[in-house]
Amino acid sequence: MIKVCNFFLWVFLVCVNNHCCGYETGGGIVEGKLNVHLVPHSHDDVGWLKTVDQYFVGSNNSIQGACVENVLDSVVMSLLRDPNRKFIFAEMAFFRRWWLMQSKQIQAQVKKLVSAGQLEFVNGGWCMHDEAATHYIDMIDQTTLGHSLIKSNFNVTPRAGWQIDPFGHSAVQAYLLGAELGFDSMHFARIDYQDRAKRKDDKSLEVIWRGSETFGSSSQIFTNVFPRHYSAPDGFNFEVSGDFEPVQDSPLLFDMNVKKRVNDFIDAALTQANVTRTNHIMWTMGDDFQYQYAESWFKQMDKLIHYVNKDGRVNALYSTPSVYTDAKFASNMSWPLKTHDFFPYADGGDSYWTGYFTSRPALKGYVRSLSGYYLASRQLEYLTGRKNNGPNTFSLGDALGIAQHHDAVTGTAKQHTTNDYEKRLAIGAHEAEAVVNSALSCLTSSASNCTIPTSKSTFTQCPLLNISFCPPAENIPSGKSLVIVAYNPLGWKRTDVIRFPVKDANLVVQDNKGNTIEAQFVEFDNVTSNLRSFYTEAYLGFSPKDVPKYWLLFQASVPPLGWNTYFITQKTGKGGYVSMLEYTTQSDTVKIGPGSLKMSFSVKSGQLKRITNSRTGVDLPVQQTYLWYGSGDQNQPSGAYIFHPNGSPPSIVSRSVPIKVIRGPLVDEVHQQFNPWIYQVTRLYKDKEHAEFEFTIGEIPTDDSVGKEVITRITANMVTNKVFYTDSNGRDFLKRVRDYREDWPLHVTQPVAGNYYPLNLGIYTSDKKTEMSVLVDRATGGASIKDGQMEIMFHRRMLEDDGRGVGEPLDETVCTKTTCQGLKVRGNYYMSVDKVGSGSRWRRTTGQEIYSPLLLAFAHENQDHYKASHSTRSTTMDPNYSLPPNIALITLQELEDGSVLLRLAHLYEAGEDVDFSTLVKVELKKVFAHKTIKKIKETSLSANQDKSAIKKTPWKVEGKSETGSRTVKGGPVDPLTLVVELGPMEIRTFILHL
Amino acid sequence: MIKVCNFFLWVFLVCVNNHCCGYETGGGIVEGKLNVHLVPHSHDDVGWLKTVDQYFVGSNNSIQGACVENVLDSVVMSLLRDPNRKFIFAEMAFFRRWWLMQSKQIQAQVKKLVSAGQLEFVNGGWCMHDEAATHYIDMIDQTTLGHSLIKSNFNVTPRAGWQIDPFGHSAVQAYLLGAELGFDSMHFARIDYQDRAKRKDDKSLEVIWRGSETFGSSSQIFTNVFPRHYSAPDGFNFEVSGDFEPVQDSPLLFDMNVKKRVNDFIDAALTQANVTRTNHIMWTMGDDFQYQYAESWFKQMDKLIHYVNKDGRVNALYSTPSVYTDAKFASNMSWPLKTHDFFPYADGGDSYWTGYFTSRPALKGYVRSLSGYYLASRQLEYLTGRKNNGPNTFSLGDALGIAQHHDAVTGTAKQHTTNDYEKRLAIGAHEAEAVVNSALSCLTSSASNCTIPTSKSTFTQCPLLNISFCPPAENIPSGKSLVIVAYNPLGWKRTDVIRFPVKDANLVVQDNKGNTIEAQFVEFDNVTSNLRSFYTEAYLGFSPKDVPKYWLLFQASVPPLGWNTYFITQKTGKGGYVSMLEYTTQSDTVKIGPGSLKMSFSVKSGQLKRITNSRTGVDLPVQQTYLWYGSGDQNQPSGAYIFHPNGSPPSIVSRSVPIKVIRGPLVDEVHQQFNPWIYQVTRLYKDKEHAEFEFTIGEIPTDDSVGKEVITRITANMVTNKVFYTDSNGRDFLKRVRDYREDWPLHVTQPVAGNYYPLNLGIYTSDKKTEMSVLVDRATGGASIKDGQMEIMFHRRMLEDDGRGVGEPLDETVCTKTTCQGLKVRGNYYMSVDKVGSGSRWRRTTGQEIYSPLLLAFAHENQDHYKASHSTRSTTMDPNYSLPPNIALITLQELEDGSVLLRLAHLYEAGEDVDFSTLVKVELKKVFAHKTIKKIKETSLSANQDKSAIKKTPWKVEGKSETGSRTVKGGPVDPLTLVVELGPMEIRTFILHL
Repeated sequence: MIKVCNFFLWVFLVCVNNHCCGYETGGGIVEGKLNVHLVPHSHDDVGWLKTVDQYFVGSNNSIQGACVENVLDSVVMSLLRDPNRKFIFAEMAFFRRWWLMQSKQIQAQVKKLVSAGQLEFVNGGWCMHDEAATHYIDMIDQTTLGHSLIKSNFNVTPRAGWQIDPFGHSAVQAYLLGAELGFDSMHFARIDYQDRAKRKDDKSLEVIWRGSETFGSSSQIFTNVFPRHYSAPDGFNFEVSGDFEPVQDSPLLFDMNVKKRVNDFIDAALTQANVTRTNHIMWTMGDDFQYQYAESWFKQMDKLIHYVNKDGRVNALYSTPSVYTDAKFASNMSWPLKTHDFFPYADGGDSYWTGYFTSRPALKGYVRSLSGYYLASRQLEYLTGRKNNGPNTFSLGDALGIAQHHDAVTGTAKQHTTNDYEKRLAIGAHEAEAVVNSALSCLTSSASNCTIPTSKSTFTQCPLLNISFCPPAENIPSGKSLVIVAYNPLGWKRTDVIRFPVKDANLVVQDNKGNTIEAQFVEFDNVTSNLRSFYTEAYLGFSPKDVPKYWLLFQASVPPLGWNTYFITQKTGKGGYVSMLEYTTQSDTVKIGPGSLKMSFSVKSGQLKRITNSRTGVDLPVQQTYLWYGSGDQNQPSGAYIFHPNGSPPSIVSRSVPIKVIRGPLVDEVHQQFNPWIYQVTRLYKDKEHAEFEFTIGEIPTDDSVGKEVITRITANMVTNKVFYTDSNGRDFLKRVRDYREDWPLHVTQPVAGNYYPLNLGIYTSDKKTEMSVLVDRATGGASIKDGQMEIMFHRRMLEDDGRGVGEPLDETVCTKTTCQGLKVRGNYYMSVDKVGSGSRWRRTTGQEIYSPLLLAFAHENQDHYKASHSTRSTTMDPNYSLPPNIALITLQELEDGSVLLRLAHLYEAGEDVDFSTLVKVELKKVFAHKTIKKIKETSLSANQDKSAIKKTPWKVEGKSETGSRTVKGGPVDPLTLVVELGPMEIRTFILHL
Repeated sequence: MIKVCNFFLWVFLVCVNNHCCGYETGGGIVEGKLNVHLVPHSHDDVGWLKTVDQYFVGSNNSIQGACVENVLDSVVMSLLRDPNRKFIFAEMAFFRRWWLMQSKQIQAQVKKLVSAGQLEFVNGGWCMHDEAATHYIDMIDQTTLGHSLIKSNFNVTPRAGWQIDPFGHSAVQAYLLGAELGFDSMHFARIDYQDRAKRKDDKSLEVIWRGSETFGSSSQIFTNVFPRHYSAPDGFNFEVSGDFEPVQDSPLLFDMNVKKRVNDFIDAALTQANVTRTNHIMWTMGDDFQYQYAESWFKQMDKLIHYVNKDGRVNALYSTPSVYTDAKFASNMSWPLKTHDFFPYADGGDSYWTGYFTSRPALKGYVRSLSGYYLASRQLEYLTGRKNNGPNTFSLGDALGIAQHHDAVTGTAKQHTTNDYEKRLAIGAHEAEAVVNSALSCLTSSASNCTIPTSKSTFTQCPLLNISFCPPAENIPSGKSLVIVAYNPLGWKRTDVIRFPVKDANLVVQDNKGNTIEAQFVEFDNVTSNLRSFYTEAYLGFSPKDVPKYWLLFQASVPPLGWNTYFITQKTGKGGYVSMLEYTTQSDTVKIGPGSLKMSFSVKSGQLKRITNSRTGVDLPVQQTYLWYGSGDQNQPSGAYIFHPNGSPPSIVSRSVPIKVIRGPLVDEVHQQFNPWIYQVTRLYKDKEHAEFEFTIGEIPTDDSVGKEVITRITANMVTNKVFYTDSNGRDFLKRVRDYREDWPLHVTQPVAGNYYPLNLGIYTSDKKTEMSVLVDRATGGASIKDGQMEIMFHRRMLEDDGRGVGEPLDETVCTKTTCQGLKVRGNYYMSVDKVGSGSRWRRTTGQEIYSPLLLAFAHENQDHYKASHSTRSTTMDPNYSLPPNIALITLQELEDGSVLLRLAHLYEAGEDVDFSTLVKVELKKVFAHKTIKKIKETSLSANQDKSAIKKTPWKVEGKSETGSRTVKGGPVDPLTLVVELGPMEIRTFILHL
């Protein structure tokens, strides 16, 4: 059975046909046998215990011996040694680093390996993005970045979704970042332990997944959930210097073990075959950062394939997810149907991975804010022409792409790695700022030709406005005005209140026509002053001596994809309404709200009591407060990944809160110091029918040695029947039922942590009359633990590691040269109460506005002089056009080759809104009013292939197949009329040549 | 300064001339600069913590992540990638395993790498042999095995001795296994810490070493002692997954550090240059089992060479020991002279590595006994024709080659590895037994043509005679005789007493003429019975029920390179003199000795009192006893490597020993039970003028939690003035002076351990009248701690590890299925007292007899029938010829190609003996009496090049150069007369075609 070469003493091997003990590994699939698909892979986190660059070059190996350069170098060498060998690679952030360092010769060899199918890109995004804490626009962007690199260098399109490690899996991933990308399969390891047990029982680990209710079977994907982890079966990990039993077939040596190893192999294969349909099983041959020396793996796999196939009981082959998927399809099997998603993920009864939905809220906030900024800056870059060599938006896209990694935005990387992510984001943002400043200078310039970049930009921006630091607004030179250009990246006209800190109240605000417009000065509170003082010192190394006295607010109105200009000028005397913070003591109840929305607070307890909307007639008794969960037992403490509260009800931080109130023409505010480390400002704006809550949480005290996870809880008098809704990556809303899973009878072990779901857009619930919705400004976790209640987690600080690898407690601090503090987090959430069935309009429109705020640029100029030489208000679209309210422009970007990438997204699901869940048209000629579209090509979501080239695999589904009657999609675009139709939830991607 | 490729965003590297960021590494040596020779190497122990095969295939990696297959695979791939890269490899036991598995294509590539100088073999023996516990014949054999492989496959001869790890360095290594092999340099890391400090101070780490007093400058070698270990300088170890700071030169990535790493490099280089003569320094770029993924090293070295040379302050290059040595010679420097050796080795004041001289005495004994057996079996194989495919002596040579490794015979490997060495030796011995049986059948057969192997051999042997188990002697079928063929591998006629166990005393011994010869039956003692019973069960799984009652002894006389036959036949009545063990109580003193040598013992104390030789008139009062050292403190316990006694005088095991005495015509014996675990038999033979001591030591008790190191101490009334002599690898005797080192003023920290030296042949001391000599039967350690005293360590059992890596206490046990015992060791030592100046004849002749005992084969046949069909006594030489008494035949072997390897060794040093330290002649025609020598070629010691091809490098030595007047060497061999002359200590190696 064993092929033995002839050995002579002193003489050397007699080789036949130049093949010396060669291993037969090219047999492929054998019908009628159990086929074991060996899929060689290395799971290379784009940062985790080390930074992405440390992982790439292999530095900092005392933390983890890992060098991706070694992986790629050695894999290529091993693949070149034998054309039967295969390997898959996922993370383009790493691949790009490597590729750029290779000689033309190596590049040519790698191209051959790719075209021969030996090296297959899977996923092919910049990273293996997370699926809970990521926004769908970021997911699309980072995937597009990677797919573009693959397409331009190798002219191939990845076919397989390879999300092996993310901690739960989203509906949007399945249909949008799966089927709509052109993937025909999705593969991953992590699902709930109860779910996995049940799926192993009934062989339903492999399913057809329809993630979208709207799209149904038209966006389904074959999904392969691994029976264990994404590592090789026990005993088959062949990492160099690892402890494995090598296949020993040399009669020269002791311990020949071919028979034993073949039996081991077959045992492991049969075990897996017992939980798998068809006679194809996949072995994921790899693990984290493995293949440091690829030959160590391939040498063993060569032997196993050879001897196992000689044995003949099963058939082993080198394979890839694509080969495997094709084999699955060819077997003509019917597959179980899977809808919804795979959240939350638990790997044990006490181990719900729902903490990471909120971990590192400052990072999550930064990522989300730069996501919107990236969208806007690419628009501006496109509008004035992309520079390949000058500053451009690539490095921000690169940094954001890396940040979507499932240990980045998730908050599950080590602190030093997190610092690196933030550094990259800051560098990228800084370069994008230069693009924006330059573009705005160019766009607003009256000079006719704006394609030549204006070398000296007059604009600056205020990236530290989140800590109330905006030097241009604070120091206006005498004789000049503060010029504020507000750019609106949305396709709709909008009106928003702009706020920035000023030193004094003797300022007037004028619009571009010279009309003075209403301004409101709001007194700076102490919490904000302290925040500004500490964080400027921490970030900039100095703390400005002058503390602004006020926030200056005014209402800006900006056309779609356009800008408007405002002038702030010193005038003696008051420039506007000055609102001072005052305690209200005169009555039992204080009611605030300059518009139709009113909120009532108990003066005595400081608690919110009621929300009413005089326009809609909604009237809802509501309480809102802050609480914290204490971390669970030492066996399984809460940590970066895991939320494991100690079982007690969360502690209410205060039952009685003194409140300060301000009122004014633009905004009413309620300031509440819930406890020494939780401050909240509630704002009701004129012309807005929602409440804006700004929280400042931290430093969370830990001197009692208890880790704390801070939530806000909103309690309404509503009968919600366990049901609530949370978004999937900011796009679809999924129905959640407390203590229930669609796919199996849930055994409830964690009544709180097991009911948490990720929020990116928001959460809502409803009874027969009312919908109560909350939108968030970043990724976080939320739940409804009791009927009528919703809770959202905003901050976490822990003292222990939760044992899932990161090896650090999630205990964020911020330091000046002299002192460190627990991290303070400031953020917003937004609440609306609506009549049942009409909440989605608010959620969709406001959600888009939160994601894409007005972009503000500042300059100091003489107002008249500025107006004489600048265009102060304009849209880049047809002045009479705006996008329909159910359509968002989610990408407008000039590509490297000068073509333009356009993505339009319908914002409503089928049936979500009576008026808006409909097919709608976008007139591209009016969007691109000043340009001519010479050519238009519709593509897959990641723009790497023609839309028409995507082949839908006709998978068979068990039971009655859904008809897909609800699915309405737009038809082909007529290149003459250039009208794009979009059905509910549809995103259409185009490459334009202008 | 840094060569940066042009990076475009999204665009890829612009490479010039197909070189993309290529590194310039081919600059070689630059005159006028400090040249840093980077010598890439992997130190691959031929067994240590794992077995040789485990190391090769990379199994058992939980003990140590090490796979030599990976080293060789990946090094070859890396060398092929860049012709400037170099690598050296030493251990042919590993290389052979690898080479035999390679395809012809890879073999062809490797041949090119070797001929291009990219891959250089250093040492090139089967292993990197130890230098303390090895016999020079084993050193030669294992080196020849490796050099032959290299020569036949690559047609190259190694130039450099690469003994980087052995724990001290011998004189024989320098001149014999160095210069006489054709090496022009020797490189190693381990010398005494005081010596190293002094050599660093005066830049004498590099020396010209003349290891032989006899040969002087004619066998000198350039010797490079590393200033630290054989690893790379701190921070420059680039093992895959190791924790190093990679050179980061990519502007794509954070943490560029080229400048810092260049400075690090130059700092380390200058530090070394400060202790090194000339502007050439060597960096040993590697460590134990490193280069698991060679590219990890070469990638970093490429960058360092490139950037360091761009910097220009020093010059870095890929190099090898040969390139380095040539550069050293080219610098025309004079070097300090070094004579003698580098023993003992200490790496700290409490850390003398003198324990390993004795560690694992059973293994050491087995190796030595098989070394002699290998010599004899190759003679017999040659005499009847070597079979390439049948049983042959290769596997014994292979096993012995491996056993010479500096963690094998040293006793410093883990127990399971030691078991593996022993298993290999047993397998090799078993195959050699078949060769011997077959050859003897053939040789003794009267059939004319003996070149056709006799398929059915009638002979068996008794490899377990050391535990008194010899089935053919114990069970003689009725009607048949026990036929004993005694083969003499020496070139001289000899007479020895043969002994084997028999059941009864009713046996007669007859010689080949049918004459009954004198036999003596000696009663079996209990210690021997018990030993036999336990060890047969442990080794064979059963214990024979019948215990022999007697040893049967008779005197055999065998011609040179020939055999004689004896017949043992049952006869009723006594067959010979029966000696029973009896206590002697009648007088104060008992005097024994059937010949001219007599020994007197005190009956009361049991102590030896006096030795006299009536022939020579020597009369010396002598005591002999056993003692043990207790292991030192916990900071540095004694262990496999280190001998660290606790500082107290050794414990005397007993001051009063009951003795039993037997007397007989052939031997007188004194049996002494020194304590329950030390038994000694002293034997004085008729016709021998020395005493033979057989000790049985063990199990050493450790229930007092004290590790013990057991010595015998011989105390004579002699004024020896601190001086004694110990052999170097069984060849030269070196003068040792207690508490003194020739090369530096010794600071004595360990008055016992620091005065121990390795013994392979023996130890002697003398005063003005007398020489007292002891010869040993295996490697061990010995010393003279007080004048007139000599001590030898025989056994060690320790309870703690000594912290030098092996990670196990040296605590040997032997187990049956039901019970384990501490290892018992039985061995011999031999003592002679001679008039001063005349001891060497005894030492040299007896030493050779101990090394090459008579080889015994047994058969059961009818005596008459046997004699009718067999040649019962013969020599293979001319019947009237024997080798001169000062010449030993140390190799006679048929090589694979049918040619014959012959080595003759002169046994005396210049001036050692008045008569024998002279030029002497060997007549090959008479040695090869039955054959015709068609062609004779003299070669280097390892037979891999013509003797005339060895070029002696004319190194300059500081001070007055020795003239070499004492050196007398034989002249060329006249192919007609075929007379070989040998001067003192000369070994001449020939390839003959017969």
